[in-house]
Amino acid sequence: MIREVFGGITIVPGIRAAGIQCGIKEEGRDLALIVSEPPAIPAGLFSRNKVQAEPLKLTLNHINYGLTRAILINSGNANCCTGPEGYSHAQELAYLLANYLQVNPHSILLASTGHIGKKLPLEKIKSALPALIKALSPEGGRDAAEAILTTDKTRKEIAIEWDYKGQTFHLGGIAKGAGMIQPDMATMLCFLATDFNIDRGLLQYTLKKAVDKSFNRITIDGDTSTNDMVICLANGAARNERVRTKNGAFRAFQEVLDQVTLSLAHLIVQDGEGVTKFIEIRVIGSATPKDARAVARSLANSILVKTAFFGEDPNWGRFMMAIGKAGARVNPDKINIALNGLTIVQQGLEVPEVGEEKAREILRKKELRVVVDLNLGRADTIVWTTDLSTEYVRLNSQYLS
Amino acid sequence: MIREVFGGITIVPGIRAAGIQCGIKEEGRDLALIVSEPPAIPAGLFSRNKVQAEPLKLTLNHINYGLTRAILINSGNANCCTGPEGYSHAQELAYLLANYLQVNPHSILLASTGHIGKKLPLEKIKSALPALIKALSPEGGRDAAEAILTTDKTRKEIAIEWDYKGQTFHLGGIAKGAGMIQPDMATMLCFLATDFNIDRGLLQYTLKKAVDKSFNRITIDGDTSTNDMVICLANGAARNERVRTKNGAFRAFQEVLDQVTLSLAHLIVQDGEGVTKFIEIRVIGSATPKDARAVARSLANSILVKTAFFGEDPNWGRFMMAIGKAGARVNPDKINIALNGLTIVQQGLEVPEVGEEKAREILRKKELRVVVDLNLGRADTIVWTTDLSTEYVRLNSQYLS
Repeated sequence: MIREVFGGITIVPGIRAAGIQCGIKEEGRDLALIVSEPPAIPAGLFSRNKVQAEPLKLTLNHINYGLTRAILINSGNANCCTGPEGYSHAQELAYLLANYLQVNPHSILLASTGHIGKKLPLEKIKSALPALIKALSPEGGRDAAEAILTTDKTRKEIAIEWDYKGQTFHLGGIAKGAGMIQPDMATMLCFLATDFNIDRGLLQYTLKKAVDKSFNRITIDGDTSTNDMVICLANGAARNERVRTKNGAFRAFQEVLDQVTLSLAHLIVQDGEGVTKFIEIRVIGSATPKDARAVARSLANSILVKTAFFGEDPNWGRFMMAIGKAGARVNPDKINIALNGLTIVQQGLEVPEVGEEKAREILRKKELRVVVDLNLGRADTIVWTTDLSTEYVRLNSQYLS
Repeated sequence: MIREVFGGITIVPGIRAAGIQCGIKEEGRDLALIVSEPPAIPAGLFSRNKVQAEPLKLTLNHINYGLTRAILINSGNANCCTGPEGYSHAQELAYLLANYLQVNPHSILLASTGHIGKKLPLEKIKSALPALIKALSPEGGRDAAEAILTTDKTRKEIAIEWDYKGQTFHLGGIAKGAGMIQPDMATMLCFLATDFNIDRGLLQYTLKKAVDKSFNRITIDGDTSTNDMVICLANGAARNERVRTKNGAFRAFQEVLDQVTLSLAHLIVQDGEGVTKFIEIRVIGSATPKDARAVARSLANSILVKTAFFGEDPNWGRFMMAIGKAGARVNPDKINIALNGLTIVQQGLEVPEVGEEKAREILRKKELRVVVDLNLGRADTIVWTTDLSTEYVRLNSQYLS
C-alpha cells in the first residue's frame, strides 16, 4: 500500500527542516537546512560536469566519511568557479554548522545553486545560521523546499507512506530544477529522506537505479549544471531490521523511491523555464539501448523540434531530421512516428489521411506523447522534455540583470 | 594576386545560370539552374544525416558517373521523406532537363531545400523548365543565388579572379543557409564553379580541405539538414594544363577555394535566423584536436551560452559549465577565457579588475571573439556561431504556418 501524503521531506520521522531568508537573493527564502536525528546513512549522485561547484566537492569528500547529520543548502549563488577561497568558504560553513549542532563536521553535506562565478556571500550565511537552526521543525519541509528554488515557479515536494508486513515507512523529498537540465547526469538538486533502515551499499545501488529511470531521463535545454546532486538520507528511524539483501522489503522501498524520483523529475520538467508543453518521447524498436537513447535525446534537445512544439507546428520533417542526425542505426524507410496515439508518419512517409489540421489540434494539448518506432530491434527508452519558447530565451538572456 | 570581383558564380567562363519563380514558394524566385559548357569535373560533399533527401540521393548516384553539365535547384520544398515517389520525381526532372539540354541524364545534379516531408510540386517545376533554360545567361548568377534561398534574408555569392604565371583564373559561388546548421557536415547548399583545369581526385581532396576549414566550423542551432551539399564544378575553360599534383598552381587554387568557402560560411552565420551577433570561438591549449572541437562545439551549441550572448549578459559561469560538460579533458583551474582580447577568466576564476560593466560593454558589440585557453596542450580549433534570440524561436515556431 503506497499513499501520497502531505508533509514533504519532514514527513519522515527524525527529519526536521527549515528555510529562511538570509539575503543572498533579493527576495524570498534562500537558505535551507535538513537535519536527521538519528544520524542517517547517505547515498548520493553528482553532476558529471568536469567543472564542479565547491560545495559539491566538499559533499563528495564528506559523504564517504560516515553517517550524515545535516544538509545545508543555499540558493542564489552556486559557489562554483570560486577557487580555493570558495572551497574554504564551504568548509567554514560546514565546521560552523557542525559546531552549532555539536556534531562531526564530516557529517555535514553542502549544496548551492544559483549564479556561477560569483563569490559566496559568506557573512550573510554565517550570521543567519543561528536563526536557521532555531527555525528547524518537523513541519519545516515546505520552507526548505521553497528556499532551494532559483528561477523555479513552484515548490517541488512529495511525501509517501507505505506499509510492509504491518509496519509503516516514509519517504519524502524536495527538488529544484528549471534550467541547465540534461539527462544522464545525477541531475539538479534533490534531497530525499526515509526512515527505512537499509544498508549503505544497497541504498546507493537503489538510488542509482531510481535516478537512471527519472532524473537521468529528463532534459530541458541539454545543458548540465555544475552543482547538481541527488542525496538520499536513510535514518532507520522506523527501526526495521537493516535491509542488506534484495528482499521483499527492499523491493517495496525501491518501488516507492522510483515513484518519488519520477514524480519530482516530472515536476521539474513541468516547471522548466518558459515551458508551455510537457513532452514524453518514447523510442521503441531500436537495435540497441544506446541507439534508442541517442535518438530520444537528439529529438528532445533539437532546437528546431522544440520550437516546432512551441509553435504547435506539425513540422514532422524536423523529427526525421533529428532522428537522422543522432548517429544511431536508423533506416528512414522503416520509421513510424505517433503523436498522442495517432500515427502521423508510416515507413518514413507522411500519413496523408491525418492532415495538418488534425495534427495541429493534437499539438495544442499541453501534454504530448511522441512514439518513434525505428523497427530495427527490441530496445527502447523514454525521455521527458519540454518545448523551447520565446519566454525561455527572454528569461535566460536576462538572468544576471 | 587574388581579387574579389562582381559576378557571382557566372564570373566563370563557360558558366551560365538562371533563377526564376515557378510557384513553389508563395513569393520570390524558387528555381535555379547552373549550366557548364564545356562539361565540368564535379566534386561534392554531402550531409551526414542518415535521413537523406531524394535529390541528394540522385546527385550521389550521378556525381560518380562522369562529367557534369548542369545543376537544378529548387527552394521551398526539400523533397525529403517523400519515399520512392520523391526519388522518381527527382529522376523525372533530371531526365526531362537532360532531354531539353540534349545531354546525358547522369550529367545532371539536383538539389532541393525547404520544407521536409511534403510532396514535391512536380508539375510546377516541369512546366517552368523551358522558361528557366531560356533565362540562362552569363549574368544569371545573381538570380540563381536568389532562387536557392529559403528563410535567408540576403543573397550569398562571391566571385574571385586570380593570376598564376600570367594566366587569369576564376572561382565563383553561391550559398544558402539560415537554419539547421551544425559543423562537421558538408553543410547547407553551396555551389561553386571554376575554369581552373584540375584532376577529379585532387578537386575532391581540396574541396574537402576547404570545407573542413569553413562550412564544417560553423553552427547556428546544432541541427543538421537532410539536404546539405557543397558542389564544385571545374570546367577547365581556362585551358591550363590539367593539374594532377600539388604544385604551385594547385596551391594558388587551394588558397582561393579556402577564401571563397570561408567567406560564404561567414555570410551564412551572419544571416542565421534571428541572429544579432557573429561569434568566433577559438579553443587553444587543448590536449588533443578532438578535445578542442568538443569544447568549441559545446560552447557554440549551448542554449544557455547563446541566450547569454543575446542578452549581452557577461554570465561567464555558463561558459565554464559548457566547457565542463563537453566530455573533453579539462582542468577548471587552468582555464583562461578572453573576450575580444580582454581576459575575463584567469585560471578558472573571474578577473575582478574587469568588472561587469566593462564585460557588458564588450558584449554590446556585434562581432565577438572568445578565446578559451585550456592550458593542457598544443591543439586548437575555431568555430563560428551566433546568439540565440527570441526572434529565432519566433521564426522557427511559425515556419510551416
